[in-house]
Amino acid sequence: MEFTLSRIALGLWRAKEWNYNTQQLLSLVNQVLELGITSFDNADIYGDYECEALFGNVLRESPSIRDKMQIITKCGIKLISQKFPATTIKHYDTSKQHVIQTVENSLKNLNTEYIDLLLIHRPDPFMNADETAEAFHELKKSGKALHFGVSNFFPHQFSLLQSRLDFPLKTNQIKASVLCTDHFDNGTIDYLQEKKVLPMAWSPFAGGRLFYENNEQEVRVRNVLFEIAKKYNAEIDAVAASWLLVHPVNFIVVLGSGKIERIKSAMKGLDIHLSREDWFKVWTASKGIDVP
Amino acid sequence: MEFTLSRIALGLWRAKEWNYNTQQLLSLVNQVLELGITSFDNADIYGDYECEALFGNVLRESPSIRDKMQIITKCGIKLISQKFPATTIKHYDTSKQHVIQTVENSLKNLNTEYIDLLLIHRPDPFMNADETAEAFHELKKSGKALHFGVSNFFPHQFSLLQSRLDFPLKTNQIKASVLCTDHFDNGTIDYLQEKKVLPMAWSPFAGGRLFYENNEQEVRVRNVLFEIAKKYNAEIDAVAASWLLVHPVNFIVVLGSGKIERIKSAMKGLDIHLSREDWFKVWTASKGIDVP
Amino acid sequence: MEFTLSRIALGLWRAKEWNYNTQQLLSLVNQVLELGITSFDNADIYGDYECEALFGNVLRESPSIRDKMQIITKCGIKLISQKFPATTIKHYDTSKQHVIQTVENSLKNLNTEYIDLLLIHRPDPFMNADETAEAFHELKKSGKALHFGVSNFFPHQFSLLQSRLDFPLKTNQIKASVLCTDHFDNGTIDYLQEKKVLPMAWSPFAGGRLFYENNEQEVRVRNVLFEIAKKYNAEIDAVAASWLLVHPVNFIVVLGSGKIERIKSAMKGLDIHLSREDWFKVWTASKGIDVP
Repeated sequence: MEFTLSRIALGLWRAKEWNYNTQQLLSLVNQVLELGITSFDNADIYGDYECEALFGNVLRESPSIRDKMQIITKCGIKLISQKFPATTIKHYDTSKQHVIQTVENSLKNLNTEYIDLLLIHRPDPFMNADETAEAFHELKKSGKALHFGVSNFFPHQFSLLQSRLDFPLKTNQIKASVLCTDHFDNGTIDYLQEKKVLPMAWSPFAGGRLFYENNEQEVRVRNVLFEIAKKYNAEIDAVAASWLLVHPVNFIVVLGSGKIERIKSAMKGLDIHLSREDWFKVWTASKGIDVP
Repeated sequence: MEFTLSRIALGLWRAKEWNYNTQQLLSLVNQVLELGITSFDNADIYGDYECEALFGNVLRESPSIRDKMQIITKCGIKLISQKFPATTIKHYDTSKQHVIQTVENSLKNLNTEYIDLLLIHRPDPFMNADETAEAFHELKKSGKALHFGVSNFFPHQFSLLQSRLDFPLKTNQIKASVLCTDHFDNGTIDYLQEKKVLPMAWSPFAGGRLFYENNEQEVRVRNVLFEIAKKYNAEIDAVAASWLLVHPVNFIVVLGSGKIERIKSAMKGLDIHLSREDWFKVWTASKGIDVP
Repeated sequence: MEFTLSRIALGLWRAKEWNYNTQQLLSLVNQVLELGITSFDNADIYGDYECEALFGNVLRESPSIRDKMQIITKCGIKLISQKFPATTIKHYDTSKQHVIQTVENSLKNLNTEYIDLLLIHRPDPFMNADETAEAFHELKKSGKALHFGVSNFFPHQFSLLQSRLDFPLKTNQIKASVLCTDHFDNGTIDYLQEKKVLPMAWSPFAGGRLFYENNEQEVRVRNVLFEIAKKYNAEIDAVAASWLLVHPVNFIVVLGSGKIERIKSAMKGLDIHLSREDWFKVWTASKGIDVP
């Protein structure tokens, strides 16, 4: 079962805030598909449990696009929400029953017969790895989810879940950007490179802080990005995307914007082949000190 | 060689302070055996090197109970003590000679022919893993100790010692409680779940702080425990024990009390099957912030 | 292909500052060879890229000593230097091309046909492990470098590079001394003991701070060293060296002095077999608190 994601994915995290009707969202989806973005990143909880259905409406409207895309969704967090009044505290649930039930619900919401890539949303300190793995095995067997991964897992958490599976986890979706380099230092990215697991990077522009925030780190990094952007004849979002895309671990970059112009601008990062020295200029600006 | 511990163990750490004569201690031991507590946790150094002998007196008094119990003891710490005037600084000794000699001494003190489970008490930065492993292999061969484990080891320390052994380490006795969640975050508990090693939890009520201390964390956790305890019709010690007992890593909980009523109260934790949501209520109270 | 280093290595880090002419440096090399120091630690960048050539002059002057020694050198850092005006920021380069090119340059500078042990100088957050491994494999095949290792790598970084090699990395040269015990705590030294990789210790006297600095830690440690030195009838540098040499991980200690008297003094550490208790006296003085 071959499996590929596009180097850039569209994140539906804020799809509700975009305030698009189904036609408008379909139009966006068609446009990004044309640009080569074929991977769409959802989660059951996005938009207070409503974003998946928005995307599902698009698929109901235009069923033929389903084959051209990979749908990613996540499970394992229980939010306080009027939709689930029984939940009285935000918590995690990676039990077999909850994982399977969530996926079945996601399938309905998304109007699809299968999830391409299902992720555990957050590491759960109460995870029974045997149980979670059983859910994965069952979902794989039934065809309800084709591939599996995790999000925000440290190596020891990844390794625990992997130890109970008879197939490899495909991704670890982590927070990484020119402003957030923790996982480059704490072993997570080295581990993923060693195990040949493709990471996905969420919040690749640090939730916009890269563009407007004026703290020391943001200013330092932005200045360096502007300097580099000139050289490559691009915008700083493209350089920031390239900074992730050229890394040898082979990040998939999840863009959270619903504006096609912003998406196109960031996608230019694919054409920039940031030099090693430029990569370290950004690294050094982000850290605020020279490498040792 | 089958090997099981009871889910609750009795810790003899403070046995000297209990001020029981042999008959009284035998009575306690008989009572807890009747409750299903069959594992007794000692260490050479407990009570300034005197606790093992107190327990040994019980076995001399009533040899027939030996078969009904598992004796755990530890080695590897050298205390400053009038009993060992040659020692001028507290330090660790995991050398072959010291480990074997300590066990032989423990056998005498405990009035037994074998230790069920021997632990290295603390990770030793000067450990020669080959030597320590040799001691274990020799003790196993001679039958002086049947099973082996460690205490307070991080995964890399566990992995080092395990790498030199031709049998699996059976436990890692770590500090864990509703007030001490470090090992849930630092990879230790995930590692033990992955390797299917049963941890033992020492200080499961945080040395009593859970009951009397009035710092922010203690108050937050205690309030949540009281709230949950009502629902399960139990005391907060039972809920705190349950919080460990229901965790998928399968903790053995080491109780340090010599009062049968306190022990009985905590043992009710075995009958409480704390819900996942309640587990996270305690977790969140302990951390002071919602899960991310 | 057998491979051994001497327990004490001579570091050429400050060879330029020694201000020796070739005859003087040759004299030093001959003297240390006679003492049993056969391993010489270089790096391309030492002395603003000039130290290797100083050592190479010695080998040109006296080719016959080449067979009696092991030459270690390092690559992977690009300094800002007038010699490489194209480099505009200090950064790392572990690309295949740079590694191979650096070694070829080192061979010329060092006047030798092979490097005994080539190290990656610093962990590179932009390392493509496949590429770096390819460089190593090619250098090994061509005979330009015989053995390979790293420096300042954490276990996850070591493990990543090792995973791509079909031979074992021989060393990890790390900063370790009676004043710098980080790697004893963070898993690095345990990992190296587990994998049976010999570490080299750089800055074994903390860059001289051990002798002259009057901060709390330095004073505490120095006092303990003086006390111990008396007992062993040695100087404190010998005790500090012994503290590393007796550790079960089997450190190679890299001395950075160009003065034969200092080298001889430190080498006496080989004859001191520091007791376990004395080892912990130093450990405790370094930490400032008793072991737990």
